[in-house]
Amino acid sequence: MNTLNSTHEPSLTSWIESANSKETDFPIQNLPFCVFQLLDQPPAIGVGIGDQILNLRTCAELGLLSDQFNDAASQTTLNAVMAMSPADRTLLRARLSELLANGTTADKSVIEKSLVFQANANLLMPCHVGDYTDFYASIYHATNVGTMFRPTNPLLPNYKHIPIGYHGRASSVVVSGTSFHRPVGQLSPTEEGGIPTRGPCKLLDYELEVAMFVAQGNELGNSISIADAEDHIFGMSLLNDWSARDIQKWEYQPLGPFLAKSFATTISPWIVTLEALAPFRCREFARPEGDPQPLDYLHSDENSSSGGVDMKLEVFLCSEKMNQQGIEPVKLSSGNFTNMYWTIAQLLTHHSSNGCNMQSGDMLGSGTVSGLTRDSRGSLLELTWDGASDNPVPGSQRTPITLPTGEERKFLGDGDEVILKGYCESDSHRRIGFGTCKGKILPAKVEA
Amino acid sequence: MNTLNSTHEPSLTSWIESANSKETDFPIQNLPFCVFQLLDQPPAIGVGIGDQILNLRTCAELGLLSDQFNDAASQTTLNAVMAMSPADRTLLRARLSELLANGTTADKSVIEKSLVFQANANLLMPCHVGDYTDFYASIYHATNVGTMFRPTNPLLPNYKHIPIGYHGRASSVVVSGTSFHRPVGQLSPTEEGGIPTRGPCKLLDYELEVAMFVAQGNELGNSISIADAEDHIFGMSLLNDWSARDIQKWEYQPLGPFLAKSFATTISPWIVTLEALAPFRCREFARPEGDPQPLDYLHSDENSSSGGVDMKLEVFLCSEKMNQQGIEPVKLSSGNFTNMYWTIAQLLTHHSSNGCNMQSGDMLGSGTVSGLTRDSRGSLLELTWDGASDNPVPGSQRTPITLPTGEERKFLGDGDEVILKGYCESDSHRRIGFGTCKGKILPAKVEA
Repeated sequence: MNTLNSTHEPSLTSWIESANSKETDFPIQNLPFCVFQLLDQPPAIGVGIGDQILNLRTCAELGLLSDQFNDAASQTTLNAVMAMSPADRTLLRARLSELLANGTTADKSVIEKSLVFQANANLLMPCHVGDYTDFYASIYHATNVGTMFRPTNPLLPNYKHIPIGYHGRASSVVVSGTSFHRPVGQLSPTEEGGIPTRGPCKLLDYELEVAMFVAQGNELGNSISIADAEDHIFGMSLLNDWSARDIQKWEYQPLGPFLAKSFATTISPWIVTLEALAPFRCREFARPEGDPQPLDYLHSDENSSSGGVDMKLEVFLCSEKMNQQGIEPVKLSSGNFTNMYWTIAQLLTHHSSNGCNMQSGDMLGSGTVSGLTRDSRGSLLELTWDGASDNPVPGSQRTPITLPTGEERKFLGDGDEVILKGYCESDSHRRIGFGTCKGKILPAKVEA
Repeated sequence: MNTLNSTHEPSLTSWIESANSKETDFPIQNLPFCVFQLLDQPPAIGVGIGDQILNLRTCAELGLLSDQFNDAASQTTLNAVMAMSPADRTLLRARLSELLANGTTADKSVIEKSLVFQANANLLMPCHVGDYTDFYASIYHATNVGTMFRPTNPLLPNYKHIPIGYHGRASSVVVSGTSFHRPVGQLSPTEEGGIPTRGPCKLLDYELEVAMFVAQGNELGNSISIADAEDHIFGMSLLNDWSARDIQKWEYQPLGPFLAKSFATTISPWIVTLEALAPFRCREFARPEGDPQPLDYLHSDENSSSGGVDMKLEVFLCSEKMNQQGIEPVKLSSGNFTNMYWTIAQLLTHHSSNGCNMQSGDMLGSGTVSGLTRDSRGSLLELTWDGASDNPVPGSQRTPITLPTGEERKFLGDGDEVILKGYCESDSHRRIGFGTCKGKILPAKVEA
């Protein structure tokens, strides 16, 4: 899957001029998948190209694709495309690249009938997410959070041996641009043995994550080997795992996060394929040389040599006041997906290693992507170091954030919009962007 | 929803004789829903009646139902029936009761064309389970497990205030009769700081639970009030939450159970509606008078007066050797669903209280149903009191189980079949049975 082919050739350009701009997220080397909708029309599958979308259903209708792809290309979700064999996915990508490349032998006037401007399209959930699993794969995040709650013992003994993960709520995964209300929930009693209260979350946070989507699945009782794992990953998007820290603190023992997370999880609408990411695969990830080797089922040489993805990740915030005053969103942090302790292949292989059946469209979250330095921490909990806690950890450096309006943030306020961005870039290859993942917080609903 | 009407009348009998037997799980007062399949035919929705199934699609085709039900009745899963309004569900139930009752005014020779023998049908998953959530609602189970792992502090401070739950894996929910392989997974290092091993689970357990299925759902951002909650519950079935105790012990900190549960969860094929259970609703559940009152959003007078369900639950085991020698399964325990600390309405209301959207067909597990006495403990972990632990809790009474063949069980062996049964009965009403929930353990797959 990771071998470079002509679709990655940096000199390849498109006859769609906006795709040739150095700044675009969507050059012809990317071709990320999406599901979009035009007014009064049914949803359709597309790929992003510059500032436009190539409508795959229209392509199928116009005879631009090989017949074998017509059914999958005409669906209203990506699940059928995801379920195709790796070889077919490669064929489809090559054909789409061919249609959009300068010098295409296809009739451009026909292809143009399949193009729509992104500005005119409503981007929808890209696929039906059957199951959503969230991992905890950044050792810096795990160490930061562990230090706040267990200063003497931040990293649990299992962390370096087993990719820690838990099941998330699939129904409340929403696409970028969906606003949601601040959740209401039970909050800890103020004194030991006291009665909890119920009210709007006071410690609302984001978590910067990357999502992986399952391509072909496995039957219940089988597992996906580490050597095969990447063939089973269709692509990646950005994910914001909104977290109600106060609700979480009270509810999560002994069975893990529940209502603190299930009110909303936002993903970006574009799924960037592993094929598009091939030039940015790297050795680097956050498992130092001296650390224990993964057990055999999680180990492969290929995985070690190119298990990482050199993907830059950024978080921006825009408060309502900033928005009203026309102030641009401020950058809160920037990190890199190489800060993962576990590779994407290891996450998928571990997940299926007990025979659990993965299905096309299932979503695996990486867990918060945090790096070693303060400016690469992927949540407010870490950035402000438990900033709003009534009982801060002794010795902790509480560092609230001041916005350009003079507003202070320890956690998120009503009207705040959080914007995630992600992109891969290098001197030798075209930029591969993920677009944006946005979500805005509406005030809590007043209860009857 | 809970008011009794003519469909519960104990004197009501069916012209299908097997439904009038005192022993049947499926008298005309029950009419549990299922999805079944005959050889070479597509799946169909049905209701159980004595030893037969009334095929709802055929009923629709023959004009036996009101037109408004024809679409939902003709589907291959129950999700559309579940999504109907409570009033429509009541109407449909009344019509099915009318068709099958002695003295029906419908043409029995037509109805007979819609009947198939259960013995000839293959029972399938009753619905598409979008999300599966597992609760921890038996205080006796929570106390037993807590005592083993935290002898001085068995019940955490949140337990009596918040219904503890976590997200489960939906893809691996299977219907009764599905065999599965013993899972393989990471097992704790034998010494502190050591390297874990990987191998077949040694401490495989069942958990006796009850499943609830969501009827109409709620939009993301809304919640379901405690007063409305039971209108949103379609019905109940039996659930076996298979658990790999050794895998769980190593993986579950800090985010909860993951691969220890996701290899298989078995449900019984029949969904008994809340309407059928109405005569067995009761005051009794396991929250003693002196305990803290639930917070307002979880409190209602109606809920207190009839929040419980007087439902008897039994667990049977049949080893491969017993099966070969023709020995009947042995009963391991019998409990009652009144041993829940939280009512089914409280579980659903709490789940949606943060705005999490519930969808028709979503499944909520009760958590292991254990009672106060040893013979009502709903898992081997509790029955044998951590029987296979290398380091038993000081003072614990380890009590392995001896089978009629002389075999001993601390946890489940290969070839063991676990059978759950459930039923409601009283002097004044017909028995309402849940059928059985069976699953058999195949040996772990040898890995390449």
